[in-house]
Amino acid sequence: MLRFSFLTLFPELLAPFAGEAIVGKARERGLIDVNLVNMRDYADNKHQKVDDSPYGGGAGMVIRVDVAERALRSLPAADEVVLLTPAGARFTQQVAEELASKSHLAFLCGRYEGFDARVEGLVTRELSVGDFVMMGGEAAAACILEAVARLVPGVLGDPESHQADSFSSGLLDYPEYTRPAVWQDQAVPDVLKGGNHAAVAAWRRAQALERTWRRRPDLLPHAGLTPQDTLTLQGLGATPEDLAEWGAPPAPVQRARKKRQGADPAP
Amino acid sequence: MLRFSFLTLFPELLAPFAGEAIVGKARERGLIDVNLVNMRDYADNKHQKVDDSPYGGGAGMVIRVDVAERALRSLPAADEVVLLTPAGARFTQQVAEELASKSHLAFLCGRYEGFDARVEGLVTRELSVGDFVMMGGEAAAACILEAVARLVPGVLGDPESHQADSFSSGLLDYPEYTRPAVWQDQAVPDVLKGGNHAAVAAWRRAQALERTWRRRPDLLPHAGLTPQDTLTLQGLGATPEDLAEWGAPPAPVQRARKKRQGADPAP
Repeated sequence: MLRFSFLTLFPELLAPFAGEAIVGKARERGLIDVNLVNMRDYADNKHQKVDDSPYGGGAGMVIRVDVAERALRSLPAADEVVLLTPAGARFTQQVAEELASKSHLAFLCGRYEGFDARVEGLVTRELSVGDFVMMGGEAAAACILEAVARLVPGVLGDPESHQADSFSSGLLDYPEYTRPAVWQDQAVPDVLKGGNHAAVAAWRRAQALERTWRRRPDLLPHAGLTPQDTLTLQGLGATPEDLAEWGAPPAPVQRARKKRQGADPAP
Repeated sequence: MLRFSFLTLFPELLAPFAGEAIVGKARERGLIDVNLVNMRDYADNKHQKVDDSPYGGGAGMVIRVDVAERALRSLPAADEVVLLTPAGARFTQQVAEELASKSHLAFLCGRYEGFDARVEGLVTRELSVGDFVMMGGEAAAACILEAVARLVPGVLGDPESHQADSFSSGLLDYPEYTRPAVWQDQAVPDVLKGGNHAAVAAWRRAQALERTWRRRPDLLPHAGLTPQDTLTLQGLGATPEDLAEWGAPPAPVQRARKKRQGADPAP
């Protein structure tokens, strides 16, 4: 069981994500748990304030560190306390896989100008979903909840359904098609209708490779390229220098064998 | 007025973000509008299906292109039709600024295995919030709504409050502090309590620089570094090669003058 605790001033933003179809079912089945903590409940008794003006002046409000600390202390110990901030390390599929193996993750969602900087002493890491600024951490928290929850074993019905995903395979996902077979003069590729599973698998791999090569060649060095992939990439126009940079293995054996025979003829 | 239209199968995930404090107020004031379109309302009349199995086999369901097309056709023309997909171009602060200048943005939020690939013909761009896979496009849509809406003039109370943000200034944000002045033996830095505005501004810039230098040196070449920043970075240990790579200008004039005097003594 993986428990997510979200500390926020706007739990209503995350509630629907916590109840969403797949997440909701996973909670019912005891695979995950989602705990929304309203930091307002941990305001200082005297002043009932969760935030205050920044020292040194400037626009906006800053969330008090003592409020965050009391809210965190109300929870069972967490394996990770994550501060969501645009200044954090980039959240990626690899980080999602790492977090999915934990048992309790707590997330601090800021609003306004964020938390008092002393909150950094309470957290195990700072994460960012990307180089952009939002109104708070909740939308990032929703991204991370979805990305991590679906990696918990049993959450997705079919254990294969995330292995073909973009990034899980190291490549962008191949294109998918469904009915209608022809739509506005655009037909589904014949190979997908032929029933030849090997041909379908080869076509999808080649499509995923081509898409990744065109859009995100930076992913190729970590994609675990096969000799067949090398052939596909050569066909797309990849140069020997490109292939070396991506760590592509030599093209399939039959080619290599032919060459060796030429260089060292049979007696 | 900037109108956002979100085409989704789960409008309830986005509804709270569309009603959130700042977004809600901006809608009331007519600065933005948020339109949630349930694609289920555009299912084919005969079959009432929005999705179907993928051609070629495999786990999951694929959203039909004709359903997406009918839902899009129901809207006033959009300046941009954005497909949210992990295979898209990276959404960044720069893209947010570009989108904030439009008048109608439509977003296609996939679920399951995503849309039929022919949907690419209906969109003006494909965007991704990051290299991770979620259960659908809605959490990404929430990120983009928040990031773009706050850049629309008038949405944030104080026009300055997003100019100091991470990425807007080219650097990560400086640390903020609020009450209590001392918490668990950690005091707010004295300079922030001194009331010297120039000293506060200089300290914040130096802190933002140090944070960016330690965490995200990749941002420095686009940060518009000043001669004073060069001094700060030299103090942190940046080498002449680093400074050249970041396009840092020469350190302030007084130093440069001293050197020149040495090399070329007055007659």
